[in-house]
Amino acid sequence: MSETTKYLLDEERIPRHWYNIMADLPVPPAPPLHPGTLQPLGPDDLAPLFPMELIMQEVSTEREVPIPEPVRDVFKLWRPSPLMRARRLEKVLGTPAKIYYKYEGVSPAGSHKPNTAVPQAWYNAQAGIKKIATETGAGQWGSSMAFAGALFGIEVTVFQVRVSYDQKPYRRALMETYGAVCHPSPSPLTNSGRAILAKDPNHPGSLGIAISEAVEVAATHDDTKYALGSVLNHVLMHQTIVGQEAMVQMEMAGDDPDVIIGCTGGGSNFAGLSFPFLGQQLRGGKKRRIVAVEPSACPSLTRGKFAYDFGDTAHLTPLTKMHTLGSTFTPPGFHAGGLRYHGMAPLVSHLKELGLIEATAYTQTACFEAGVMFARAEGIVPAPEANHAVKAAIAEALRCKAEGRSEVILFNLSGHGHFDMAAYTNYLSGKLVDQAYDENELAMALSGLPSVPA
Amino acid sequence: MSETTKYLLDEERIPRHWYNIMADLPVPPAPPLHPGTLQPLGPDDLAPLFPMELIMQEVSTEREVPIPEPVRDVFKLWRPSPLMRARRLEKVLGTPAKIYYKYEGVSPAGSHKPNTAVPQAWYNAQAGIKKIATETGAGQWGSSMAFAGALFGIEVTVFQVRVSYDQKPYRRALMETYGAVCHPSPSPLTNSGRAILAKDPNHPGSLGIAISEAVEVAATHDDTKYALGSVLNHVLMHQTIVGQEAMVQMEMAGDDPDVIIGCTGGGSNFAGLSFPFLGQQLRGGKKRRIVAVEPSACPSLTRGKFAYDFGDTAHLTPLTKMHTLGSTFTPPGFHAGGLRYHGMAPLVSHLKELGLIEATAYTQTACFEAGVMFARAEGIVPAPEANHAVKAAIAEALRCKAEGRSEVILFNLSGHGHFDMAAYTNYLSGKLVDQAYDENELAMALSGLPSVPA
Repeated sequence: MSETTKYLLDEERIPRHWYNIMADLPVPPAPPLHPGTLQPLGPDDLAPLFPMELIMQEVSTEREVPIPEPVRDVFKLWRPSPLMRARRLEKVLGTPAKIYYKYEGVSPAGSHKPNTAVPQAWYNAQAGIKKIATETGAGQWGSSMAFAGALFGIEVTVFQVRVSYDQKPYRRALMETYGAVCHPSPSPLTNSGRAILAKDPNHPGSLGIAISEAVEVAATHDDTKYALGSVLNHVLMHQTIVGQEAMVQMEMAGDDPDVIIGCTGGGSNFAGLSFPFLGQQLRGGKKRRIVAVEPSACPSLTRGKFAYDFGDTAHLTPLTKMHTLGSTFTPPGFHAGGLRYHGMAPLVSHLKELGLIEATAYTQTACFEAGVMFARAEGIVPAPEANHAVKAAIAEALRCKAEGRSEVILFNLSGHGHFDMAAYTNYLSGKLVDQAYDENELAMALSGLPSVPA
Repeated sequence: MSETTKYLLDEERIPRHWYNIMADLPVPPAPPLHPGTLQPLGPDDLAPLFPMELIMQEVSTEREVPIPEPVRDVFKLWRPSPLMRARRLEKVLGTPAKIYYKYEGVSPAGSHKPNTAVPQAWYNAQAGIKKIATETGAGQWGSSMAFAGALFGIEVTVFQVRVSYDQKPYRRALMETYGAVCHPSPSPLTNSGRAILAKDPNHPGSLGIAISEAVEVAATHDDTKYALGSVLNHVLMHQTIVGQEAMVQMEMAGDDPDVIIGCTGGGSNFAGLSFPFLGQQLRGGKKRRIVAVEPSACPSLTRGKFAYDFGDTAHLTPLTKMHTLGSTFTPPGFHAGGLRYHGMAPLVSHLKELGLIEATAYTQTACFEAGVMFARAEGIVPAPEANHAVKAAIAEALRCKAEGRSEVILFNLSGHGHFDMAAYTNYLSGKLVDQAYDENELAMALSGLPSVPA
């Protein structure tokens, strides 16, 4: 019997619209608030940061938003992405469960991030924008935005969290190869950066700080807009092409997932895979378990507070209601840089509050153990972020084994680990340790949440 | 009009046989000689190094050799690989030429190398072999063999050229993630290694030395065989699935290549793409230009001598007639580690002597310039080796522009550059220099070629 089972779609099957879960929610999420007035935000408030088409997507409640043909055309460079059945992994685990994964590492930047970078760059280009400022942690997002910018003639400036800038030069090299300019953050180029550096010239940086810097540049330069790689409604919506493709591919496979799994930092790859399935359920379809997986060291969904908070450290962004560890919380350094964010997408948080999704957390050593097992069985070396989804999928498969159940598990293998091999070296040489976050720091960060009148 | 044009095949179209160009040659190549007796080699002479099935493939003159079904099944993890038309690059160049590329970077190890690593591991496993020793330069081959070993339960030991082992730890991390053991070469583990270290404890290593070490381990351990990632007939034959797929895909595109291009180190990715087309020509089909591209700093085909020589430094391997710079020649360090070999596949050399293929050489800075242009236009960052093919394809496209000709150019994009980003950083920061080889050293190495009675 064939051990390799791959489900490919013709490129005509690349979705023609994005799915907007706003249309199917039983209760709408709380509105974002203006950071100054604490009043609900209007589209015009966002105009300094985003082109109007993206702002309208951010607030849209239409179920289907058409994907522009030039954007679909770029997607054809790597999409539709494959759905694979992990038969060799099933065999290693001895599980009666069927494990499927959607593989997003086939994109030029190696992750799901170009799914939103490309439309964001295109809408900016359509609006006549020539420059985009953005932030990045380990560099998955920054390199995706750099790639998209190169395609549409947009100059991309990336503020990269300094610790990653220094320790992981290879994603920076990728950004620069695509023609982007990359600055370590905190930088002396912005007020936000200078304020941090004045207190601590050796500050390692954080996503919250890098966001402040990029937002500040966009807000203070007429020719520059801002782009974000996760968290926002329109970003999550752009990722739903992943789940839409997976639905067709699961039908080809003749299976229907009982459990759907994605790792969550800001929430976009998780939402991308799960929202189309969840929408089906909300419209009366099959109930499935949907599991968000986060790092134990930065557990916004499992340990954070559901409250209004800022998306950045300098408090330049709107306030959104989300699971947050507090915008001043600095998680310990770990390798899944893409999951090292204090907040969570408001939509993902809202669904968690409604009991429509579950959340769980794993340590990074447990996740790397799972990743190595996956690589040896299936050939693909996952990104440290994606290892969280791999770990949860393996845990579900072993539960199925213990319970003698043949459930169908589907997870998002959101990216490959080619730029993260130093982390694998650390793990394999026994040097990787699990640093817990500081409980006192978390308590302090949570006590500092902004107070918002009910 | 669509700018992305991708030609995908259903996995049923993965070739069912390898194409053996030996069947179509107008003149047979010179036989390999035993290093001791200088007499033509028999299959038994190779038995300490390879399982008999691979030896029979090495000497076969059958046109079609069936691919075992379990090997095809593993290929389905990433094959058929895509054929793309590089329309965005054509636009940047303003050329009337049509540029197509076959993209082999979609494999788990990121290059064409698993195309032969998988069957080699499988035939060894079928023969009951539990251990394989091999060598690697930058690590493309070592990581591919490690991947294949993991799938078939074979322990893989890799001797990695020391300079790469030290400077490029990330492919080593990939090998180790797949479960292989990696030693810097020259190592104290073999006689060949110890002899080199006695003369120079800081010797940077070379592919020739690493081959000696791996061959020695295989020859002196009953439970261990040897595997080579290029040069040999059976290895080149395994790569012909690339060209067979490309022929079908070019038909889908409604075009027929006038020029076929591949980079050459040992010759396998070049042969893999071009031999099926060349075979067609040898059987009376269309005559095409077939261009091998090598680094100016290690120019075996363009500056080497066509003569019998050893494949390794310690002279443990058979003698083969090939274009060689001499087995003692150490090329200057450059980033395309996979092209840093003193010799060339005997079959490629033979075809060059017969005037059936052309050869050209480019400096590494010219190749990186081409690679960056390609990445910004097409999204994929090529491996430094593949940049040589990109450079030649661009040069042909610009020639077409100058001549006003709309030729069809096809090249093999044999791998991605995710593990080579330090080289891109060097290039982008202006630090990359072109080191020429030492003419005196080349003259000396060539004067030391073994004398073989005619």
